[in-house]
Amino acid sequence: MTEVTIDNELVERYVLELAQHGAHGETGVWRTVYSPEWVAAQDLVASWCVEAGLTVRRDAVGNVWGRLDGTAPGRVIASGSHIDSQTPGGRYDGALGVIAAVVALRALREQFGRPRRTLEAVSLCEEEASRFHAARFWGSRAITARIERDEPEKIRGYEGETIGDAMRSVGLDPTRIPEAARDDLDTWIELHIEQGPILEDEQLPVGIVWSITGIRHYVVEVLGRSDHAGARPMDTRLDPMAGAAEMILGVIDIALELGRPAVTTVGKVNVEPNLAPAVPEQVTFTVDTRHPDPVEIQRLHQRQEELMRSVAERRGLRISWNIPLDLPPCVCDASLVALLEQTARTQQIPFLTMHSGAGHDTQNMAAAAKAAMIFVQSEGGRSHTPEEFTKVEHAVEGIRVLAAALHQLAYQ
Amino acid sequence: MTEVTIDNELVERYVLELAQHGAHGETGVWRTVYSPEWVAAQDLVASWCVEAGLTVRRDAVGNVWGRLDGTAPGRVIASGSHIDSQTPGGRYDGALGVIAAVVALRALREQFGRPRRTLEAVSLCEEEASRFHAARFWGSRAITARIERDEPEKIRGYEGETIGDAMRSVGLDPTRIPEAARDDLDTWIELHIEQGPILEDEQLPVGIVWSITGIRHYVVEVLGRSDHAGARPMDTRLDPMAGAAEMILGVIDIALELGRPAVTTVGKVNVEPNLAPAVPEQVTFTVDTRHPDPVEIQRLHQRQEELMRSVAERRGLRISWNIPLDLPPCVCDASLVALLEQTARTQQIPFLTMHSGAGHDTQNMAAAAKAAMIFVQSEGGRSHTPEEFTKVEHAVEGIRVLAAALHQLAYQ
Repeated sequence: MTEVTIDNELVERYVLELAQHGAHGETGVWRTVYSPEWVAAQDLVASWCVEAGLTVRRDAVGNVWGRLDGTAPGRVIASGSHIDSQTPGGRYDGALGVIAAVVALRALREQFGRPRRTLEAVSLCEEEASRFHAARFWGSRAITARIERDEPEKIRGYEGETIGDAMRSVGLDPTRIPEAARDDLDTWIELHIEQGPILEDEQLPVGIVWSITGIRHYVVEVLGRSDHAGARPMDTRLDPMAGAAEMILGVIDIALELGRPAVTTVGKVNVEPNLAPAVPEQVTFTVDTRHPDPVEIQRLHQRQEELMRSVAERRGLRISWNIPLDLPPCVCDASLVALLEQTARTQQIPFLTMHSGAGHDTQNMAAAAKAAMIFVQSEGGRSHTPEEFTKVEHAVEGIRVLAAALHQLAYQ
Repeated sequence: MTEVTIDNELVERYVLELAQHGAHGETGVWRTVYSPEWVAAQDLVASWCVEAGLTVRRDAVGNVWGRLDGTAPGRVIASGSHIDSQTPGGRYDGALGVIAAVVALRALREQFGRPRRTLEAVSLCEEEASRFHAARFWGSRAITARIERDEPEKIRGYEGETIGDAMRSVGLDPTRIPEAARDDLDTWIELHIEQGPILEDEQLPVGIVWSITGIRHYVVEVLGRSDHAGARPMDTRLDPMAGAAEMILGVIDIALELGRPAVTTVGKVNVEPNLAPAVPEQVTFTVDTRHPDPVEIQRLHQRQEELMRSVAERRGLRISWNIPLDLPPCVCDASLVALLEQTARTQQIPFLTMHSGAGHDTQNMAAAAKAAMIFVQSEGGRSHTPEEFTKVEHAVEGIRVLAAALHQLAYQ
């Protein structure tokens, strides 16, 4: 297996340059899809692609592709990630995967010339739901033909605008979205920051992802009866707060009991009427519950639903939920995972084969290509914050794994 | 003991007339202190006092007093309640106690002429914190000289105005507030709707209040560490939501275990950042905890504080709280309670001697006079809502107890 030399300084410079578009505070980024700063960032990526000797193409949703044509016909090997950010987010989430792909292709072209098979780097749009909640994974959904015909005029941003209007404002025609679909991809590799503490805890620079966790979001409504906090005796209350607290504690405990890699988070609670001296009428909370194993995730859901129903029944509360998000686990391509492990091992880059606890564009790309991911260490496990940070040495170790795998696939 | 005849129709008419000022929807009232509708309502009460043959006086904060001078010198026997409302509230909370006092004094004057001791009816202002949170019990605090000199210019309403400005806008001079203080009161009786379900459950029209519950409000901040909902393993989290849920369940369970009349309510929860896919950084919740017994309430506080501290410690969370409200139980005057019980018994009005789970102006008036309260049944235990309702027969039974007690005190 061939080693590819990666330029630390180039990686560092690209991180800082990209972070200037939508800079937020000292180290943050606020870059929502189709905003002026997002357009400027995509233009910058396009200019890097040109510098790298790649042919630039922008597809119908605004994904920027840089292509290095192979000498032989056949399906494409692609890598990339997204440049939209949380509001605010940091410099690494998504951005580092775009940089990695461009840097890897540049290094491969400079060091090995034209490949046998075609390589592409891509900068995807709206992975984070930065501006349009329902448009999450917009770029990778366009590539995999997963955008419904009515979405552009139906999906509205946090300020009420449609995504169709936002596209038109940057010169894109929403009716042409189907043209972004690709049926010629063979392999997809996404490099991304870990967003968790596991690699740091294990003092490893790189993770090879065997599965992207399944994610289900419940929005649970517990309805009781509002009462005066003083005048209604405890034993005759129908208190949705007491019920919700028992459910929240219960669903979290179930994930703890199942042990790693099961996780469950209650991140959002809304209380009606939310007044100190009133037993609430209704408590609404979210349950974000995840597991990378397709069988285990079912057990997790079943136990949590049973617990919530039984608490409601015992306490005389009405309960209902909806499930606005339900992504099954995405098990990565086993031979591609093995190839990534092999390239890391050969280059003596210490790694852990692990799952991803977060969702990624790769979940969609896996429908169109053999797919896997490379993680690099996140300091303190932080992400989705201006404080997220990845050491350049760790980033470069990840890019070396990526570049060597692309070499193996495209040049051998 | 003498019976006093109370006119059902007059009571019913007064309830409906008063509810027209600040009417909200079909049965609601939205009447904030010093608003035009509040001024109109106080004017109406003043006109009733005139009709009843009372001498009307408005004090320095706008409380309206109707006086029936006694033939003998000596301290005053007074009754009343407040006419400001929740936003929105109903027709009965507070208003019924003002109507009761005017109707009782009118009936006494009509049926028994001039009393030996002076009687007064009063319509107090801003019991509910209808417009100025920190001005709660404004009227009764003025009477008992409990308003600090800097409060008028310091206390701001929900729209930012000071209470001093609001007073000036209705022709009151805040610098004269000390003139509202009374040092000549002997006895205070407040009639009020129960605001809870106990009298309805027991099918009784009237309650005689032996103690007004002590109320403490905690605002508890539980600080953990925000993390990605997928990428951070459960066993390394510092999840303030799990901790808060355990505390909420725990403090509620302690009150349940202690049994009636202990009550504890968690009515308000705020989560930072309140996002479904993020372990929260901080969860803030209120604990409203009440007991009418001065010894038992201490035990309640101690057990709840110990529980919260131990949960935080075990989970590695930081916890702090402040106590924005801390009213000790107000035990009513025992001989006055006995007199009210006797007047109810003599008139064969079924009653329960009970505590008040809610706060009332009487807590302040008790500093200046022997004080007690009369409750009348609330349909469904409802209050602080446009749906609150008290049957006129129940209201009149309560007023008969009040009038007979005033007769006993002022005419014997």
